[in-house]
Amino acid sequence: MNALQERILKEGKNLGNGILKVDSFVNHQVDPTLMDTCGREFAKRFANVGATKILTAEISGIAPALTTAIHLNLPVVYARKTKPITMPDQVYLTLAPSHTKGRMVELIVSPEYLANNEKVLIIDDFLASGQTILGLVRLAEASGSKVVGIGALIEKTFEGGRDVLSSVGVPIEAIARIKSMDDGKIEFV
Amino acid sequence: MNALQERILKEGKNLGNGILKVDSFVNHQVDPTLMDTCGREFAKRFANVGATKILTAEISGIAPALTTAIHLNLPVVYARKTKPITMPDQVYLTLAPSHTKGRMVELIVSPEYLANNEKVLIIDDFLASGQTILGLVRLAEASGSKVVGIGALIEKTFEGGRDVLSSVGVPIEAIARIKSMDDGKIEFV
Repeated sequence: MNALQERILKEGKNLGNGILKVDSFVNHQVDPTLMDTCGREFAKRFANVGATKILTAEISGIAPALTTAIHLNLPVVYARKTKPITMPDQVYLTLAPSHTKGRMVELIVSPEYLANNEKVLIIDDFLASGQTILGLVRLAEASGSKVVGIGALIEKTFEGGRDVLSSVGVPIEAIARIKSMDDGKIEFV
Repeated sequence: MNALQERILKEGKNLGNGILKVDSFVNHQVDPTLMDTCGREFAKRFANVGATKILTAEISGIAPALTTAIHLNLPVVYARKTKPITMPDQVYLTLAPSHTKGRMVELIVSPEYLANNEKVLIIDDFLASGQTILGLVRLAEASGSKVVGIGALIEKTFEGGRDVLSSVGVPIEAIARIKSMDDGKIEFV
């Protein structure tokens, strides 16, 4: 069992309906040592995919994407959910359903930082239904870039996201893979 | 001149009205090496304030707060701007004006992660009017914690935030201090 799995068992809360609360070390409070360890692990697993840029979605993807970026020495771009005034009028924009927000959210990237022919490694906190990550894939492809890998801290295999993303045809890595949250429990693959 | 100042002169864009665009290395795309360097610098400047926790605001504060947290080996909490479903009903909430959004935003912290008697180091990307950081100070104080230091990557001294925060009575550190953005230029203190 790795450090993230141990922490999920110790502090993660199964709130029911497939919702895993990891606010004490991932989503609201962040444990920097654990996040750095996960970043190093992603860097190791994706060492040979030839990535030139890391792409994630604000907000909770930023921490794992940044620590991965530090260990791979690559720039990281986080897709914005609202367009700041500093962004140009012409952007890449897609919609993705947010499980925790219960509505569609926009994912926006400026063409300034996602150029043609980048090799994009996508890193996010959760892989559940795969819809947010699929949105990031669409943004990368819209820019003429190619996705070369997908990493998530925590995968909920029972939500089927890995199947949804299989058409992308790239390695998919998760550090903690949860196969069941039935009956208030948390069981890993 | 330090690495952040050099980068601001090289890539920062003065959009007028005091708006500095640093989207290529801080706010949308992040340079992980530069951010790590800034985190190390904050860790050095705040080595002796006795901090037990780092507090920032989503979204753009997360990267510098996380790298500072890595070097100080402290947990980091980012105040949320919308309340996720994983957060309890009873929260610390304050309002702060957002310069780049042109409206008031909520800053929300769960009492689970900001407890009585913490010594809080606040880290953010910008110190401009000081209102966002002052909001974080109110959240810390509402929890019974004490702010022990304030750090920002970039200070715009001409917006007066340092004076606004002087009543907090703690060290205030900025890595790049801009004294003027008149006439399309960027001049450091």
